[in-house]
Amino acid sequence: MPLEGIVPPLATPLLDDQTLDLVALKKLVNRMLDAGVHGLFVLGTTGECTSLSYELRRQLISAVCTLVSGQVPVLVGITDTAPDESVALTDFAKQAGAAAVVAAPPYYFGLSQPELVTYFERLADRLSLPLFLYNMPSHTKTMISLDTVVQLAKHSNVVGFKDSSANAGYLHALIYAFRDQPEFSIFVGPEEMMASSVLMGAHGGVSGGANMFPRLYVDLYHAAKANDRETMLRLQSKVMEVSEKVYALGTYGSSYLKGLKGAMSLLGLCQNVLAAPHTAFGPAEMEKLELNLKSIEGV
Amino acid sequence: MPLEGIVPPLATPLLDDQTLDLVALKKLVNRMLDAGVHGLFVLGTTGECTSLSYELRRQLISAVCTLVSGQVPVLVGITDTAPDESVALTDFAKQAGAAAVVAAPPYYFGLSQPELVTYFERLADRLSLPLFLYNMPSHTKTMISLDTVVQLAKHSNVVGFKDSSANAGYLHALIYAFRDQPEFSIFVGPEEMMASSVLMGAHGGVSGGANMFPRLYVDLYHAAKANDRETMLRLQSKVMEVSEKVYALGTYGSSYLKGLKGAMSLLGLCQNVLAAPHTAFGPAEMEKLELNLKSIEGV
Amino acid sequence: MPLEGIVPPLATPLLDDQTLDLVALKKLVNRMLDAGVHGLFVLGTTGECTSLSYELRRQLISAVCTLVSGQVPVLVGITDTAPDESVALTDFAKQAGAAAVVAAPPYYFGLSQPELVTYFERLADRLSLPLFLYNMPSHTKTMISLDTVVQLAKHSNVVGFKDSSANAGYLHALIYAFRDQPEFSIFVGPEEMMASSVLMGAHGGVSGGANMFPRLYVDLYHAAKANDRETMLRLQSKVMEVSEKVYALGTYGSSYLKGLKGAMSLLGLCQNVLAAPHTAFGPAEMEKLELNLKSIEGV
Amino acid sequence: MPLEGIVPPLATPLLDDQTLDLVALKKLVNRMLDAGVHGLFVLGTTGECTSLSYELRRQLISAVCTLVSGQVPVLVGITDTAPDESVALTDFAKQAGAAAVVAAPPYYFGLSQPELVTYFERLADRLSLPLFLYNMPSHTKTMISLDTVVQLAKHSNVVGFKDSSANAGYLHALIYAFRDQPEFSIFVGPEEMMASSVLMGAHGGVSGGANMFPRLYVDLYHAAKANDRETMLRLQSKVMEVSEKVYALGTYGSSYLKGLKGAMSLLGLCQNVLAAPHTAFGPAEMEKLELNLKSIEGV
Repeated sequence: MPLEGIVPPLATPLLDDQTLDLVALKKLVNRMLDAGVHGLFVLGTTGECTSLSYELRRQLISAVCTLVSGQVPVLVGITDTAPDESVALTDFAKQAGAAAVVAAPPYYFGLSQPELVTYFERLADRLSLPLFLYNMPSHTKTMISLDTVVQLAKHSNVVGFKDSSANAGYLHALIYAFRDQPEFSIFVGPEEMMASSVLMGAHGGVSGGANMFPRLYVDLYHAAKANDRETMLRLQSKVMEVSEKVYALGTYGSSYLKGLKGAMSLLGLCQNVLAAPHTAFGPAEMEKLELNLKSIEGV
Repeated sequence: MPLEGIVPPLATPLLDDQTLDLVALKKLVNRMLDAGVHGLFVLGTTGECTSLSYELRRQLISAVCTLVSGQVPVLVGITDTAPDESVALTDFAKQAGAAAVVAAPPYYFGLSQPELVTYFERLADRLSLPLFLYNMPSHTKTMISLDTVVQLAKHSNVVGFKDSSANAGYLHALIYAFRDQPEFSIFVGPEEMMASSVLMGAHGGVSGGANMFPRLYVDLYHAAKANDRETMLRLQSKVMEVSEKVYALGTYGSSYLKGLKGAMSLLGLCQNVLAAPHTAFGPAEMEKLELNLKSIEGV
Repeated sequence: MPLEGIVPPLATPLLDDQTLDLVALKKLVNRMLDAGVHGLFVLGTTGECTSLSYELRRQLISAVCTLVSGQVPVLVGITDTAPDESVALTDFAKQAGAAAVVAAPPYYFGLSQPELVTYFERLADRLSLPLFLYNMPSHTKTMISLDTVVQLAKHSNVVGFKDSSANAGYLHALIYAFRDQPEFSIFVGPEEMMASSVLMGAHGGVSGGANMFPRLYVDLYHAAKANDRETMLRLQSKVMEVSEKVYALGTYGSSYLKGLKGAMSLLGLCQNVLAAPHTAFGPAEMEKLELNLKSIEGV
Repeated sequence: MPLEGIVPPLATPLLDDQTLDLVALKKLVNRMLDAGVHGLFVLGTTGECTSLSYELRRQLISAVCTLVSGQVPVLVGITDTAPDESVALTDFAKQAGAAAVVAAPPYYFGLSQPELVTYFERLADRLSLPLFLYNMPSHTKTMISLDTVVQLAKHSNVVGFKDSSANAGYLHALIYAFRDQPEFSIFVGPEEMMASSVLMGAHGGVSGGANMFPRLYVDLYHAAKANDRETMLRLQSKVMEVSEKVYALGTYGSSYLKGLKGAMSLLGLCQNVLAAPHTAFGPAEMEKLELNLKSIEGV
């Protein structure tokens, strides 16, 4: 308390479009626990949360909570446009043993900042688990303003914040605004800025690359915390190499997801299956990805 | 066949945040049928589709289909980020007696045009009812391009299109592209451009104002079809007056929804209750809205 | 008074990147005057206004005003980020014989609506010619709100409005707001919506296609004014064919400009030269454009 | 070579809307030189570049180059929509003694990435001074992609890059891409992320706050370079305090400019005059700003 460190957004291993791969899930979770991750975030953007049926979301929550069995906190994404569904999923997650939930703004109607405050306050009132706010403007169309975060942080059930805006000016303003409230957890999404953010005061990172190379991100987090500059710059360079070689192959906004799952399949961690509406990389991209992946050394 | 005319997007009458007002629903539906609407569209943006729990969505579909009882086609919104949920809701709607379904692009991840084509083709394959595509870029972040519509219209289960972009250049290009396929229904969302669009070849309008004044929009549609310019300009002016006095009171993007439901409550059609994340207008706006509403004559 | 009809945005004929083609200019202007255009708009978006040096802008103003010689009003684009330059260009245009100027919002810093009001009021105070406001949000990042237009129209030197937003809901609201001020000219940019807009009350169109086929747009305008539906739909179909075959060939936002100037060169009206930062279509696109152009009949 | 350190974007001191305040300019420049800045950037966004007439731009260039007299490199903003004007201003700047020029993408028409490459390559060919690319997507609508920067950096006259996107993922990718080309200068715009960026490999910052407190930013830069974490975090906190108390007072996008110039006037550095289209803060905001400014200690 507060949550700190590397809390990977778990990629969802699938056998086919909508069937969970429980064998891969076990391997994946155990591998991350062995590497020393500080928590797990299921049903995030990387987990293809919004593409999955509610039935599958519940299966995943149960399975992960059972596998983790209290070794680290499990956070569950409940982002939804219908508050009742968020509340129901939270109750289910609590029963399963999750530690907290994570919610981005409703993403169909865009809300104004006062509407956001009302929305999150009422939601937090109804939730049976502590809430992390999730800023994801590229997907929700809504930037949660600094003032809105400060206001919402007064709610006893709002315990932290995950920022995936990639806007470092915004994140630094947030870190400064909460300089006297160290118990309010501030996590950063994009792994490329995890080390510099931790160095400047963030609590940790929700680093998607930890699905592939969990130890790299855990080690980088510790180097940044310890102000071990040499190690940090060496590992940061490795993180950037992964980013360049795995996430930047396709031409659409979904390249990150396709690259990540493609690489995970090449590493033997899961099938190369994405939930609709997304589709996996075809043979041409996979061939290039395989070469790229082999060229990454020392991870 | 094809569908033509005024197909109002039904506002969802609520007793409280998530309880359907069945008495109001009956009154509302019958009033629109009496006015001669050509269809009904439930669970659209005006119906606060994405804010409602799935349970409530199903209740609404059943109730409306029973009330309408085949007098006009009922269209059901199935827009979702998880295809399985869209498919399940369609099966339910078919059982209830709905005629078709309507789907906008998935609205969390933004999809590219080729990804949109794949998404809608696979969805149409799985749906047990004919599909109308729904272009709503302000909410989905994704404009369905003209080429994508043309391509998707080749699918035997894709029967029409609703455009809520308000972009007249785009709509006219669409009307032109389908000039030799009159069986492909083209509907326009914003009621302010319904008459001019019908005049230029659109099949009809999904006019939200018909929840308040159904006959106005039905009459305007007929005047445009008949090229009765004098009547058309007189009724168009009335439509613009409604738009100005009812939809433009608030300061946020949700003013349309708040104004519409506020006005419906003043007209005795339903409670002034919006589903979360939205909230109804407060006393100050309602006072102004009441004055505005009283000043609209001859509707 | 007020200005009505077709006021084409003159394409700027160039010999090379920044040298005016005066021979082509004469032919182009005379051809449009012969076709019965009601005015000419130089240095608009179609005229590549912002790409031209100030020296060349002045040459163009002089040349066009001399050629037109008072037969129709000449409007001059003065859109700039530095008000002093707008004022200086207006003084020059007045001397040359122009009738009015046209200004979009400053397009580097985005302004808020109150800032826009201040900007345009101060600018109108300083201008020696009447001002048309120009709404071009895709290029300026700033939508001029309905309230802002209404407020600015009170200024004695603000005489009209050109809307290139393509948003028909917005344009219809504007037409309605000025229903009792017929002397305030409302022009629409996108030619695809010119006829339907004129039919609903707009004063005319700034139709780029009139650089190629001036009579088509003039005839369509008159058909819409006369409510001659049959003629209107026939000519509208022709306008849409031009739009589809000339403007939609490229892959970037500049396809309109490239297609227009490419087609003009194929029609013998000017060289296929665009001012930097734009470049003309290459051989492959020009070949396709030529086939497309030949297939357009009866214009 | 390469340029490194703090290169403040000079605010432009004005007597009235378009008259340079040469006395204030001298004081301002000397104060920054005394504080140890490593260069000066005139006619940037902070310098209200696009609001100034060309005549005034030339006056400013001459005056600053004379004042600096070779003590540090002077960089001159030449961002324009008309390449001829950029070229002419560069020639003038070279004569005046400037060291390099800085250009953002043309900001009226949005260009695609291939069009950007062509634009900058042709511009660089014509420029008589070395060119820094300037990424400013919030104002130009155009993000210069990583691939575009890498391609343009091959041009012998392109020597560096200034990133004002605030996107740390992008900036880190850029730093990584140029890891073997240390002679290519990478500067960051937003001062809130200057220290963390320098720490991760950026060459320096174009920190607007240095107009008020030059030593603060120079010291922070040196602390980050030296990996003196304690000093860095202390000064970073001060930078964030300035940011919160000076830049975040207004309600519009121009709050930064208004706050900066308001604060500079309170510090006796210049008049509180902004060039149109902007206007200075009124009394209410100035009163609040004064209190805020007084509460900042130790700068």
